Amino acid sequence: MPASVPSWLYLPGIAAPGGAYTLPEDEAHYVGRVCRAKPGEPATGTDGEGTVADLELTRVARSVEVAVLGRRFVPRPCVASVLCGTPEGSRADWLVEKLAELGIARLVPLECARANWRGARLDRARKIAVAALRQSRNAWLLEVAEPVTVSDAIAGISGTEARWIADAEAQDRWAPAVIPPASVAAVGPAPGFTAGEREQFAGSGFQPVRLGPARLRTETAAIAWAAGWTARLDGPGPAP
Amino acid sequence: MPASVPSWLYLPGIAAPGGAYTLPEDEAHYVGRVCRAKPGEPATGTDGEGTVADLELTRVARSVEVAVLGRRFVPRPCVASVLCGTPEGSRADWLVEKLAELGIARLVPLECARANWRGARLDRARKIAVAALRQSRNAWLLEVAEPVTVSDAIAGISGTEARWIADAEAQDRWAPAVIPPASVAAVGPAPGFTAGEREQFAGSGFQPVRLGPARLRTETAAIAWAAGWTARLDGPGPAP
Repeated sequence: MPASVPSWLYLPGIAAPGGAYTLPEDEAHYVGRVCRAKPGEPATGTDGEGTVADLELTRVARSVEVAVLGRRFVPRPCVASVLCGTPEGSRADWLVEKLAELGIARLVPLECARANWRGARLDRARKIAVAALRQSRNAWLLEVAEPVTVSDAIAGISGTEARWIADAEAQDRWAPAVIPPASVAAVGPAPGFTAGEREQFAGSGFQPVRLGPARLRTETAAIAWAAGWTARLDGPGPAP
Repeated sequence: MPASVPSWLYLPGIAAPGGAYTLPEDEAHYVGRVCRAKPGEPATGTDGEGTVADLELTRVARSVEVAVLGRRFVPRPCVASVLCGTPEGSRADWLVEKLAELGIARLVPLECARANWRGARLDRARKIAVAALRQSRNAWLLEVAEPVTVSDAIAGISGTEARWIADAEAQDRWAPAVIPPASVAAVGPAPGFTAGEREQFAGSGFQPVRLGPARLRTETAAIAWAAGWTARLDGPGPAP
């Protein structure tokens, strides 16, 4: 693949093999203006829902078109959601980028008693998720949900997920031997969950777990949990 | 403790109990101007080398003095170093903050063939490490070493450390059952290690390990490794 062609495009609703597809505006700008790609060059793209397509650029102008040469489906045997209180300052950008890189399926911003996501730039967060998808060549896009209350977040869980809540005071480490098909982690906002919020989670089967001896910021705890999840994804493997 | 008093001060060379100590300039500004603390109020501080001291403010003016009421030593049974290539853009700030929060002892910036830390603000990185020490109430400060070549970094290892190198293509997962007393992880810069650099690490006993199925940025791989390290620190614990 020539160096000029972007290695991974985000193409929602990508056509079936044999079909033609017009790139979304952002991707067209990137291919045509940033990479200065030319018709005939190859490219790869994903719809962020598991489909990865091999492409050939057929038109590169203000509008960019591709022919879909082939496509494959990348399954996702395990999915994880993170229900997360508000981190401080600009740390939400990082939270989104890292959860996307680590392959988390869904970030649910939690409106908590002590902190809320009011003023959060969800449009910006979703762009960061797309950028991380491109960079990490993931076939699945991190979904950034609309902020919800703790009650609504719990009500929105389908029922079969394994559930944990990050808690520096917990007796149990988070150390699952096997990753279940569906997992949910809850992480408090910078000032912490209230006792009432903790009770809501406990009453819904969320197991308090600690992520190490240290006191972690909101986004660090969420990323540490996601790192532990993704590290266990592909089976126990041989220990080094 | 009144809300006005900072919860955790960084006090290198803190005096013995019964002694007096004049705060470094940054801490004095924070205590006097930001927190508007008053003489007689309590505070806590650490020298970043395991000593935690209980203090009483005795003078709060342009210069701030404390009396050391008592102190204790927080041992560090396991230490970890991260030898790390250059992350992209401003991501080094994040790398430092997160490694500090996760309790890593030492960050060694690696000068690699494909990327170097020239222009990196080490003074800024060290301030970030101190801020993370305060925030996470750690008794040990993350040391940010001077950048060195791969050869020099390897030569600087004492010899007894367990050694891993992050490698997305590795056959083995990084999943140690027990954390050894001393660990070192090597992580490539954004464009990756060269084959020659990998050989140098392999020849020095660094075991290639993967941190999950995803392709991770430099700082994400380093943070994911550190999260796995800290999560295993306090023993196997009961699985939830």
